[in-house]
Amino acid sequence: MTVTKKAGVLGATGSVGQKFILLLSEHPDFELYKLGASERSAGKKYENAVKWRQTATVPEFAKPKVVVECKPEEFLDCDVVFSGLDSDVAGDIETAFSDAGLLVVSNAKNHRMDDDVPLVVPLVNPNHLDVTVRKLKTAKAQNVKKGSIVCISNCSTAGLVVPLGALVEKFGTISQCMVTTMQAISGAGFAPGVLGFDILDNVIPYISGEEDKLETEVSKILGGVSEADVFVDRPGMTISAQCNRVAVSDGHLECVSIKFEQSPPPSLEEVKQAMRDYVCEPQTLGCFSAPQHTIYVLDEPDRPQPRLDRDRDNGYAVSVGRVRPDPIFDYKFIVLSHNTILGAAGAGVLIAETLLAKGAM
Amino acid sequence: MTVTKKAGVLGATGSVGQKFILLLSEHPDFELYKLGASERSAGKKYENAVKWRQTATVPEFAKPKVVVECKPEEFLDCDVVFSGLDSDVAGDIETAFSDAGLLVVSNAKNHRMDDDVPLVVPLVNPNHLDVTVRKLKTAKAQNVKKGSIVCISNCSTAGLVVPLGALVEKFGTISQCMVTTMQAISGAGFAPGVLGFDILDNVIPYISGEEDKLETEVSKILGGVSEADVFVDRPGMTISAQCNRVAVSDGHLECVSIKFEQSPPPSLEEVKQAMRDYVCEPQTLGCFSAPQHTIYVLDEPDRPQPRLDRDRDNGYAVSVGRVRPDPIFDYKFIVLSHNTILGAAGAGVLIAETLLAKGAM
Amino acid sequence: MTVTKKAGVLGATGSVGQKFILLLSEHPDFELYKLGASERSAGKKYENAVKWRQTATVPEFAKPKVVVECKPEEFLDCDVVFSGLDSDVAGDIETAFSDAGLLVVSNAKNHRMDDDVPLVVPLVNPNHLDVTVRKLKTAKAQNVKKGSIVCISNCSTAGLVVPLGALVEKFGTISQCMVTTMQAISGAGFAPGVLGFDILDNVIPYISGEEDKLETEVSKILGGVSEADVFVDRPGMTISAQCNRVAVSDGHLECVSIKFEQSPPPSLEEVKQAMRDYVCEPQTLGCFSAPQHTIYVLDEPDRPQPRLDRDRDNGYAVSVGRVRPDPIFDYKFIVLSHNTILGAAGAGVLIAETLLAKGAM
Amino acid sequence: MTVTKKAGVLGATGSVGQKFILLLSEHPDFELYKLGASERSAGKKYENAVKWRQTATVPEFAKPKVVVECKPEEFLDCDVVFSGLDSDVAGDIETAFSDAGLLVVSNAKNHRMDDDVPLVVPLVNPNHLDVTVRKLKTAKAQNVKKGSIVCISNCSTAGLVVPLGALVEKFGTISQCMVTTMQAISGAGFAPGVLGFDILDNVIPYISGEEDKLETEVSKILGGVSEADVFVDRPGMTISAQCNRVAVSDGHLECVSIKFEQSPPPSLEEVKQAMRDYVCEPQTLGCFSAPQHTIYVLDEPDRPQPRLDRDRDNGYAVSVGRVRPDPIFDYKFIVLSHNTILGAAGAGVLIAETLLAKGAM
Repeated sequence: MTVTKKAGVLGATGSVGQKFILLLSEHPDFELYKLGASERSAGKKYENAVKWRQTATVPEFAKPKVVVECKPEEFLDCDVVFSGLDSDVAGDIETAFSDAGLLVVSNAKNHRMDDDVPLVVPLVNPNHLDVTVRKLKTAKAQNVKKGSIVCISNCSTAGLVVPLGALVEKFGTISQCMVTTMQAISGAGFAPGVLGFDILDNVIPYISGEEDKLETEVSKILGGVSEADVFVDRPGMTISAQCNRVAVSDGHLECVSIKFEQSPPPSLEEVKQAMRDYVCEPQTLGCFSAPQHTIYVLDEPDRPQPRLDRDRDNGYAVSVGRVRPDPIFDYKFIVLSHNTILGAAGAGVLIAETLLAKGAM
Repeated sequence: MTVTKKAGVLGATGSVGQKFILLLSEHPDFELYKLGASERSAGKKYENAVKWRQTATVPEFAKPKVVVECKPEEFLDCDVVFSGLDSDVAGDIETAFSDAGLLVVSNAKNHRMDDDVPLVVPLVNPNHLDVTVRKLKTAKAQNVKKGSIVCISNCSTAGLVVPLGALVEKFGTISQCMVTTMQAISGAGFAPGVLGFDILDNVIPYISGEEDKLETEVSKILGGVSEADVFVDRPGMTISAQCNRVAVSDGHLECVSIKFEQSPPPSLEEVKQAMRDYVCEPQTLGCFSAPQHTIYVLDEPDRPQPRLDRDRDNGYAVSVGRVRPDPIFDYKFIVLSHNTILGAAGAGVLIAETLLAKGAM
Repeated sequence: MTVTKKAGVLGATGSVGQKFILLLSEHPDFELYKLGASERSAGKKYENAVKWRQTATVPEFAKPKVVVECKPEEFLDCDVVFSGLDSDVAGDIETAFSDAGLLVVSNAKNHRMDDDVPLVVPLVNPNHLDVTVRKLKTAKAQNVKKGSIVCISNCSTAGLVVPLGALVEKFGTISQCMVTTMQAISGAGFAPGVLGFDILDNVIPYISGEEDKLETEVSKILGGVSEADVFVDRPGMTISAQCNRVAVSDGHLECVSIKFEQSPPPSLEEVKQAMRDYVCEPQTLGCFSAPQHTIYVLDEPDRPQPRLDRDRDNGYAVSVGRVRPDPIFDYKFIVLSHNTILGAAGAGVLIAETLLAKGAM
Repeated sequence: MTVTKKAGVLGATGSVGQKFILLLSEHPDFELYKLGASERSAGKKYENAVKWRQTATVPEFAKPKVVVECKPEEFLDCDVVFSGLDSDVAGDIETAFSDAGLLVVSNAKNHRMDDDVPLVVPLVNPNHLDVTVRKLKTAKAQNVKKGSIVCISNCSTAGLVVPLGALVEKFGTISQCMVTTMQAISGAGFAPGVLGFDILDNVIPYISGEEDKLETEVSKILGGVSEADVFVDRPGMTISAQCNRVAVSDGHLECVSIKFEQSPPPSLEEVKQAMRDYVCEPQTLGCFSAPQHTIYVLDEPDRPQPRLDRDRDNGYAVSVGRVRPDPIFDYKFIVLSHNTILGAAGAGVLIAETLLAKGAM
């Protein structure tokens, strides 16, 4: 790509915002152009406004940038705006941005289930972005400025839906899926986040709203698009989720049991091969952040593990292991994904790369 | 009880052995009489032989005790012998002890599935001990010295089977049960145990042999006894387990989904009430270590948690939480149990108390 | 004691307040009478106002108690008021309570260095309480209602000053003391507290204001009282502190090097014996919470350890280990204390017990 | 460099050996040529012999390599042999290798204090390698095959001695230095290593032999070389160390207090500037692994932190923070170094690069 697109980040001082800034800081397609945060931070230099908590240091170019408020008029020059806003404010702000003709890629939950908003895991359903691309291209052709919202999935959904998607594509519907998650604390953000005192030597067997998200988002992501460009759930899939927070910094691990609709189900080897062979569209489009390999199927008995496997392909790939028959359903396996990359900011960046490759900006 | 029984401990320097010693150190029914360990430790004072790793200090009376080898002739005066031996040696030694007329309560896996050996979770199937009691009483009456082995269940089985047992007793068979465990590292023992480097900021999604134990032991524990005093699995129950090691010192947490055979299933309230109302036999027998309450059913959305709830009733009770409908099976819930108390040494002590209360010694 | 005194707790929903409530919940001398918290909590039942985070459950009697605002008129019936208030509000509120004739035992830092307020580690300088006792007795004799404030020391000071106090009492001034602390996260409280994401697989080498507290409080605690009842620092002691937060739930461990003023210094054996022999006044007064033994001097090379030793004598004793010559100063050793017991709420309760034993209420 | 040198690794399956293999796997100067391990592993393919525990996967080229025994005759073609052997076997094996004419760079402690063996922290005293270089060049000139041993310092020494070295170079001797370490568990290796059960929610205030190493190695590293090529301690420096193990995976943090011999001491700004300005010889030689910057002096109040700063310059730089006056000595500060890079295998690789740059092979 020779043209660099201007990018804005909303919620730039928060945990997702910081990650967006890191991922965009040396990106070939996007230039970090505007940083938006709360009124309290607006007017300050970014280095003074942020309590930085990443392993890498604050990118030099971001330090002196003056933070602005999250108002559309500040971002009108942006080709794309990444939203790391908290859900208590994200809904209205993102609508306002879209109404102002801006393309918003959001990590917030507010618009995920809107039936005209694509909910995208870029390794699974980048085809849902075609609706957005078509809309934006049409507007452009008509010389109209038209905004749009694209939603990133919930972080625990992002891991689960990749192997499910690969299998559904090959073998048809998975009628039943039970999943128990062990989720990293980085997913809870910084304010209030998870206290060390609460998670040390402990498991917290509850994440507010999380199970519901897992049980509903998968069907939309694996669903289709109506002629009216409305997103329609995939029928016939029931998900049951139990979500836990564990003392892991990054990386969500999920124990999954699945039952195929087709009977007899595919063989164990076919299941593993289908996941190994799966290639996502961002790979074929040559997107910068696309993983080299979408699903790593590991044969070691005790892998994947969060600390050892979360960074495969810079956190954009998922790792599957322990694929084996299930005495009740058909198969069980575990899946690991990087919750702040594939499950949040990284997915947003890869969505934007895909939109760009498809001509939406 | 006015008479104190003489107790031996095999594997006294290991992790389970240390716990047996602590639990027996101020016990009203048992006197810690003999400590057995490997040849390497034999002949040393216990305080010199052991690398002690408990929160409480080594009981004073145990320090100067001279450790002996695990040979029956050293333990002939014992009324009961608790075995914390590793499974690579436990099988033969325990058989030898039983053959020598000793009553062995074992934490090792070797004899668990022997069809003439009771596999007992004392909060669930203390009635299986009646076979042993009858055998020993008969021998006594005939003035014959007869040995016997009783097995403690696997630690993750112990937690799961308590609510399952309470529900099966009330509502009949649970035909399907999926369980994902998050198990404490104390369960791995000390040699080799789980390295800090392996579990810090990590989950290890595999425990050798554990899933198989969970999937087979439950049916034996909830099963019956034939006229020939052979233990028979409960028919019609299928368990599917996924087992993980997490960075928790003590306390196994398990996410469970169940489907009753009866249709329609009992109501949510009936399920919770059945668990709340459940009273185990050691309670009614007045055993010293019996929990005040067998199952604590918690209503807080984020409980039980290992660090906050594992010590309820000194680790002899289990805690159940988040009982709620399951979109695939009937109900899902979480259960927490103390893996080194109810799941290991403590269960052994409570089994011995129950045997004593029933007249086996 | 036959008469039970009425106790109030300020900041009852916070981390120190919760601990006060636990410690007072089955106390023979004090009845938990009033619970004070912020305006937001006032009027609610305690069980609804608090986000309870202790291992033990909320005491039954506390659950229905209605929380009041932290105003003196609400607490006039109290014989003693324990303050677990945050320092941003503690200063003024505690002054108001004292002005209203109430006896306040405070964990906040605000009044610690006031020269007419005793700063007390009950194992070290309970004699400083005599000023308070005299004042209150005189007022009582004159039938005047007179208030008073007594301050609990900083948590890391509480551990260090016990062995220092024992040695100074026996061998005179310690002229130089270097200390590096490894402090538990419970000491940071709950709001904002230390995030799991920040402390997992990490050390935070900074605790705001902590080094300064350590460097100044010790001299006051080991100092004297002038004829005008003014507290005077012990001269000739210089402390240098480096403070760190580590991934430990409870228990501050400190590495200490000391140089005695006297030359030659006492022998290694004399130093250890002086600590072993040290008896604190609350022990001789028979206070309910006094430790059985003030300082446990351990001979194992790798003890004390936070998880294994923090609970000695219910957290009211300190543990010292690794006493050995220092190649630069005279001796080095490590000391462990329970930061939320001896270093906070527990110290407050033991101070109140001592005041009671001395006739202040 | 156009010529690639052949490298061997002893102890290739252990924790240090694995790190050597990772660091050498894509190295421009060295080709991983021979892998040595115990008799038990010899004859197996590396992928079958090793229990791999690194974040990166086993390098492909290493997987099929057949492991050999640690005998000199197997390694005669190697230009350099890196030893990650345990100290119980390293002494004799390394002597045998040196006697056989091989150049050994060792992480073991056995030969560190030999007065003809350089003990090298490559950021501090690469000049000590000149003795080795001269010896090897002379032998080469004489067409004699001469072996040599170079020792890597202890891991906690490596961090401390970098700022000390920078300051001593600029301001002369530091007469007194107190240091308390908080060391990562990776430093303990894998067998036996530190158990999760021992370090979780805990600090272990003892590392066998560690304090003695810190107190003696620094003077040798900062010392000189006699005319007879004997290494001589720097006189006039006394170090006092207290060493602790904390729940951190990688990165040793050390709290340091120092007193200069010169009086008055340099100013605070001069001290910081001297560390900032310090450039190590491997940087000027252009060694592949040399850090970009030797010492990062951070101004944030709470940095460096192990998780956030250990990987600066791939773990080859050290980070210093909190430089401030000390009320007893002159200054205090904290220093962080990556214990398995700069403190072990990485130092070995950088030593070899330096030797190569200086013409020793």
